[in-house]
Parts: sequence; structure tokens; C-alpha cells
Amino acid sequence: MPTINVYTELSPEEKEAKKDYIDRHSPFIAVAKTAKAGEKLAVNIRLGKDYSHPDDTDHYINEIKLFDKETLLATATLLSGINGGHGNKGQAEVTFFIVPQKNLRLTALVYCTKHGLWQNDPIEVAVS
Amino acid sequence: MPTINVYTELSPEEKEAKKDYIDRHSPFIAVAKTAKAGEKLAVNIRLGKDYSHPDDTDHYINEIKLFDKETLLATATLLSGINGGHGNKGQAEVTFFIVPQKNLRLTALVYCTKHGLWQNDPIEVAVS
Amino acid sequence: MPTINVYTELSPEEKEAKKDYIDRHSPFIAVAKTAKAGEKLAVNIRLGKDYSHPDDTDHYINEIKLFDKETLLATATLLSGINGGHGNKGQAEVTFFIVPQKNLRLTALVYCTKHGLWQNDPIEVAVS
Amino acid sequence: MPTINVYTELSPEEKEAKKDYIDRHSPFIAVAKTAKAGEKLAVNIRLGKDYSHPDDTDHYINEIKLFDKETLLATATLLSGINGGHGNKGQAEVTFFIVPQKNLRLTALVYCTKHGLWQNDPIEVAVS
Repeated sequence: MPTINVYTELSPEEKEAKKDYIDRHSPFIAVAKTAKAGEKLAVNIRLGKDYSHPDDTDHYINEIKLFDKETLLATATLLSGINGGHGNKGQAEVTFFIVPQKNLRLTALVYCTKHGLWQNDPIEVAVS
Repeated sequence: MPTINVYTELSPEEKEAKKDYIDRHSPFIAVAKTAKAGEKLAVNIRLGKDYSHPDDTDHYINEIKLFDKETLLATATLLSGINGGHGNKGQAEVTFFIVPQKNLRLTALVYCTKHGLWQNDPIEVAVS
Repeated sequence: MPTINVYTELSPEEKEAKKDYIDRHSPFIAVAKTAKAGEKLAVNIRLGKDYSHPDDTDHYINEIKLFDKETLLATATLLSGINGGHGNKGQAEVTFFIVPQKNLRLTALVYCTKHGLWQNDPIEVAVS
Repeated sequence: MPTINVYTELSPEEKEAKKDYIDRHSPFIAVAKTAKAGEKLAVNIRLGKDYSHPDDTDHYINEIKLFDKETLLATATLLSGINGGHGNKGQAEVTFFIVPQKNLRLTALVYCTKHGLWQNDPIEVAVS
């Protein structure tokens, strides 16, 4: 079954050794810590905090999914070329807009065509 | 074949009569008029300028595609519930981030589960 | 706006000159002419009747959508490599299974990463 | 993070008690045990071996992904209505066609809008 890789599940030693590799494949969610029920909330997802990923035709970030707990909210399917194209590097990024009714626990699940599935640790948003 | 509806192809009379219907299904792209080659550019797409669309389980905005001329850059697939859920209305919205290398002519192609395909008139971005 | 190319809208002269090009980008739907309401029906879509399309990382068939009239039923999103991979050619193909309740008018809308959107003339299925 | 449910990871007691629930959410892959390199191979995926799943607008099978080891080959995104529509039950199903070059280890990862992600145990195909 496909492995799902996670930024935080690795040991400090592994992280140091593979810091670039892990960083550029991991989704980082930027979202307000609190939100109002029934009001629009921006959820930004970007791959790579400090490093960039290739946008080669045979190696690129293809999919970014946003879940609230077990529930899929949206999927962004990207084509190679959107982040500069073959020979360039960039940070795949999308902002989804959601209208929550209750507390959120957000996870992004992303797919690299060469290095498989990656996700972040869940982010909590208090909705009132 | 599926009809592709467009905001601006209707007569003034039709627009007035169906203003709400047309507005809430039409994608509006917000993007800078000029951009630098190789630098990240935000492309915001929102459905409805003045009106909102239902987010009912049997009637919601399901897909938002971004094209540069004939080339697909990205697709956002939305699930019912993301804009408030059944009984609520909202404006489906996504921001894609692209790294252009030359002039852009951007079109959004969107799908409503009850009223089919809609697109906007192309938006030009000068890239240098 | 993205052009949607169609197999049958070209003149005989154009078809002869561009026969390979047109054939390998056009979706062909294979489906029974009649079906029973409430029973499962296979709808096969294949690109290319007589010719094959590259499966290169920068040039491949990326998406196959099935519509009934204006209603989207399903989308198959393919990744480069599924049809033999870079340097090979093949005919992108998927079979969707649908359970119709009334007469169908089926159209496939497909996307090539280099040559844009293509669709077939609608296919009618009598459902009783 | 989203849980991924699997048919075979449950105890015999749990399976008996929840047999219907588990069966109708689990993907079953039907594929030849051996295949020839460079030749087209049909991979059928169906949800439910003995039971059927609702096709309600608020509860339906939305996505069927096919992986070879860690590599995504294709995604079928389904809309509610394809399996009979609200009030009906059916078995979501798709056949992908792939052209393998070496041995395959196939997994389907599927998404139910109410009960989340499910996958099967990998299926091996010897390719020569």
C-alpha cells in the first residue's frame, strides 16, 4: 500500500540528514487559529518551508488535498509547468477558501510523482 | 456536447433578467496586470461578483479549472460542504499560484452540478 | 478561451491531411445502443481509433471526462507513464460504469497536455 | 490525519459485525495475475464484493485511485448520480487500462464522502 510520509515522524538525525528532501515534500498549512462559524476562511497550503521542489515533467507536485478530520474538502490537481517548468524549482502552493460551521482539524495530503504521498500533522482551528 | 456558458455572451436584456443566475455561475479572475518572469503570481478565482451560489449536496460548484491559452495549469475539485454546506450559499473560491515565463491569457472553466460549464472572457497578464 | 476540438467538424481535406493528429486526440465511446433503467452500463472511452498517442512526460493524455448532456458523470485523471511511459505510444482508455434512469446523450471531453481539449459527437443510448 | 481503512486489518469478530459496512467501502481489484510488458492490461476496481453502497447526494463514493507501489497511475472522480442517484444503491466501479513495463503491486485508494479513505491489500501482477 502507498506509504504516507510525514514531516514530523522522523528522528532528529534523519531530519538533519534528509532535511532538504523532507522539507520540500511536506505541506505547510497557514491558517488563522480561530474562525467564525459561517464566515469564509482562507487555508493556504505550501510545499516546502525552506526548500523548493523541481517542476520537471517527470518529477513535480501533482496533487494537494485538504481534509477536515476524515472529510475531504478539496483537491488541487497541478500540471507540470505551473511552477516554472522543466529545469526550474518552486514551491507548489494553493489557497482554498472554506466556510466552517464547527472546529476544524486540517490535514493536507500531497503527491509527488517521484516520491509519493506526504502529509502534515493536523492543524486545529477553533470555530465559534 | 456540453454547452459552455459565458458571462459576456448574453444580450443586455438577458443579463438583466438572469443577472443573479449568470453572476453566481461566472468565474471572476483577480490577478495583477503585469508580472515578472520566473516569479510567483497569485491567481484568484471566485464565482459570483455580486451574488452567491448554493452549496447544497445536489447543487454546488464542483470544479474550477485554470487555463493559460489552451494549456491547463490546475484544477480545484470541490466537495459540497466547503462553502457552508446544505442550505447555505457562498462564493466558491480558490487561489492558484503560478510561475509564468511569458505573457499569459488566463481563462477559468468551472462546473456547477446543476447548471453545467461556465467560463470567463480571457484575462491578459503581461510578463517580462 | 480554450478551443474545444472535435473529430467531425473538420472538412474532408483537413481530415485527410491531419488524419493521424485528429484521430489520436479524439475520444471514441463504445457503449450499448440500448440499456435498462437502473442497471449497470459500461461506457468505454478510448483515444484514437486507428492511431496512438505519445505517453511522454511532456505530452500525454491527462484527463477524460464523461458527460450526459450537460451533466458531468465522472473524470479520469491520468498520469504520464500509464500508457507505456516516455518514448512509447498508446491509446488512453477508461471504462466507466453508470446506472442510468433515462435516455443518455454521452460526450467525452479529453485533454492533451500539448494539444488541448477534444470531444466527440454525442452518442445516444435509449434507456427503458 | 485521515485514517485509511483496510478490509483485512480487522479481527474476525469485527468483520462479522461490520461485514456490510466494510464490504461496501472496500475496493476489490480484478486483474490478470500475469501480463506482458508493453501490452495493455485492464485493471478493474469495484467497491463492494457482496454489498452495495448508497449513491445519495450526501453519501457516495467520490474517488477511486490506482497506485503501483508508491506511484499514482490514475484517479477516477465520480459524481453522485452515476450509480443510480439519490435513494439508490450500487457498486462504484471503473476499469483503468495500463501498459506495464515491469512487475506491478497495485493498490486502490478510495474515498467515501461520509466514511473516509479505504484501500485494499496490494495485488501483485507478474510482468514479463
